[in-house]
Amino acid sequence: MTTTTMPMLDTYPAEINLDRAKLAATIDALIACSEACTACADACLSEAMVAELTKCIRTNLDCADICATTARVLSRHTGYDANISRSLLDACAVACRSCGDECSRHADHHEHCRICAEACRACERACRELLASMS
Amino acid sequence: MTTTTMPMLDTYPAEINLDRAKLAATIDALIACSEACTACADACLSEAMVAELTKCIRTNLDCADICATTARVLSRHTGYDANISRSLLDACAVACRSCGDECSRHADHHEHCRICAEACRACERACRELLASMS
Amino acid sequence: MTTTTMPMLDTYPAEINLDRAKLAATIDALIACSEACTACADACLSEAMVAELTKCIRTNLDCADICATTARVLSRHTGYDANISRSLLDACAVACRSCGDECSRHADHHEHCRICAEACRACERACRELLASMS
Amino acid sequence: MTTTTMPMLDTYPAEINLDRAKLAATIDALIACSEACTACADACLSEAMVAELTKCIRTNLDCADICATTARVLSRHTGYDANISRSLLDACAVACRSCGDECSRHADHHEHCRICAEACRACERACRELLASMS
Repeated sequence: MTTTTMPMLDTYPAEINLDRAKLAATIDALIACSEACTACADACLSEAMVAELTKCIRTNLDCADICATTARVLSRHTGYDANISRSLLDACAVACRSCGDECSRHADHHEHCRICAEACRACERACRELLASMS
Repeated sequence: MTTTTMPMLDTYPAEINLDRAKLAATIDALIACSEACTACADACLSEAMVAELTKCIRTNLDCADICATTARVLSRHTGYDANISRSLLDACAVACRSCGDECSRHADHHEHCRICAEACRACERACRELLASMS
Repeated sequence: MTTTTMPMLDTYPAEINLDRAKLAATIDALIACSEACTACADACLSEAMVAELTKCIRTNLDCADICATTARVLSRHTGYDANISRSLLDACAVACRSCGDECSRHADHHEHCRICAEACRACERACRELLASMS
Repeated sequence: MTTTTMPMLDTYPAEINLDRAKLAATIDALIACSEACTACADACLSEAMVAELTKCIRTNLDCADICATTARVLSRHTGYDANISRSLLDACAVACRSCGDECSRHADHHEHCRICAEACRACERACRELLASMS
C-alpha cells in the first residue's frame, strides 16, 4: 500500500520549511504507530493475563493519542510555527520511547507487543531525525 | 509501505466477528482518508481563493475526525458491540460521501482536492462493503 | 464552572440552523461524557478486578472517541451538512446507550461507573433531543 | 455547570501522584480551550475576511488537538509516567501561548478570537502551574 501522504505534500500550494520526504516518512510512521498502539491496547485487554498488562494498555493509549495529534500538526503547513512542531515532536519521542520500552517487556509473550514495540521504535527514530533536521 | 494493521489483527488473542482481510482494508482506508482530509483542509487554507473553499475545509475537518474515530472503533474487538460499529460505519460513509462530493467540485483546480476525493470514495466504498458483510 | 460553548456560539458570524441553547447543551454534554468515559476506562484499568471490566473499558474508549468527534462536528457551522450531523448524532446516541448500559452493570461496585453511566444517559438524551429538533 | 472531572478523580481506586484539585482544574481548562479553539477555527472560516485569518485557523486547529490529547493523558493515572506528562504539558503550554498570541491579534475585530485568546491564556497558565508543581 502506498500512502497518499507524499502526493498530498507535493500538492501543497506554498512553501514547506522542512524536507518533504523526511516529513512524509515521519507522518507515516506516526500514523502507523498510533494504529499499532490502539490495536495493542485492545489485544492486551483481551489477554487472560490482562492484570499484568495495565501499564502497557495505559501507555499504548497515551502513545496512540500523542502520535495521532503529532501527525495532524505535522500535516499542516499554513502559518507554520516551529515552536509548536518542535515541542510536540519532543513529547511524541518521549511517549514512543516509554511505550516501546513497556511493550518490549512483553514482546516474548505477546506478538502484538513485539510488533507494537517495533512501530514505537521506528516512530521515535523518525521524530528525533525530523527534530534534528529542524535545528 | 506495508501497514501493520493486518499483522496486528492476526495477533489478536480472541475471536473477531468479521472478515479480517476486509476489516484491515477498511481500517487502512479510514486512516488514509483521515490523513488526506487533514492535509486537504490545510492545503485549501493556503490557496489564494480560500474564501471559495470554506465549505471544503469544513467538510474535510469533519471527515478527518469521523474517519479517525471509526478506525479506532474498528481496531477494538474486546466486548464487540455490533450496534456501535454499524451506526458509526453508516455515519462515516455519509461523511465520506459528502466530502468526496465537495472535493470533487474543486478537483479540476486543485490537485489536493482530486487526491482527497479519491481517498473519500475509496473509504466510503470500504465502509459500505464492511457494513454489507455485517448483516 | 461556566463553559464558553454558548458564548462562542453567540459570536458565530453567520446563521446557525439549530436552536443555539439546545446545541450548546448538547456539545457540553458530549464533552462531559467523553471526559467521564476516558476517566472511567482508566479507573477500571486500576481496579483489582480489571479482568471483569474489559468490556466496560472497551465501550468507554469507543464512547469517549465518538463523543469527542461529535462535539467537534456540532461545533462547526460553516457549510453545514445536516446529513453528517444527523447520522453522527444517531451513532453517538447508540454508543452512549451501550456505554451507559455497561457502566450501569458495575455501578453498585464502582462509583466511577455510576457517575459515568449518568454522564452517558444525559448525553444520549441530549443527542436524541437535538436529533428530534432537526427533523 | 459543574464538571464531573473532580468527582471522577475522587473515585480513582489508586494513588494519584499529583494535587487532585490542581489536576482537575487543568483538565477542565484543557477541555474548555480545546472546544473554544475548535469553535474559533470555524467562526474564522465564516468571516468575510477569512484570507486574513488562515494562520489563526491553523493555530486553532493545532491547539484544539494538542489540548484534547493533553486532557486525555492527564485523565489517566494507571502506570503513571511523569516524563510523558511533563513533556506533553510543555508542548501544550507552547501551543496555547502561540494560539493565545495569534487570537489576541484579532480580538478587537472578532469577539470569538477574544474569548478564545482568554481560554488559551487560562489553559497555558494551568499547564505551567501543574508543571511547576511536578518538579
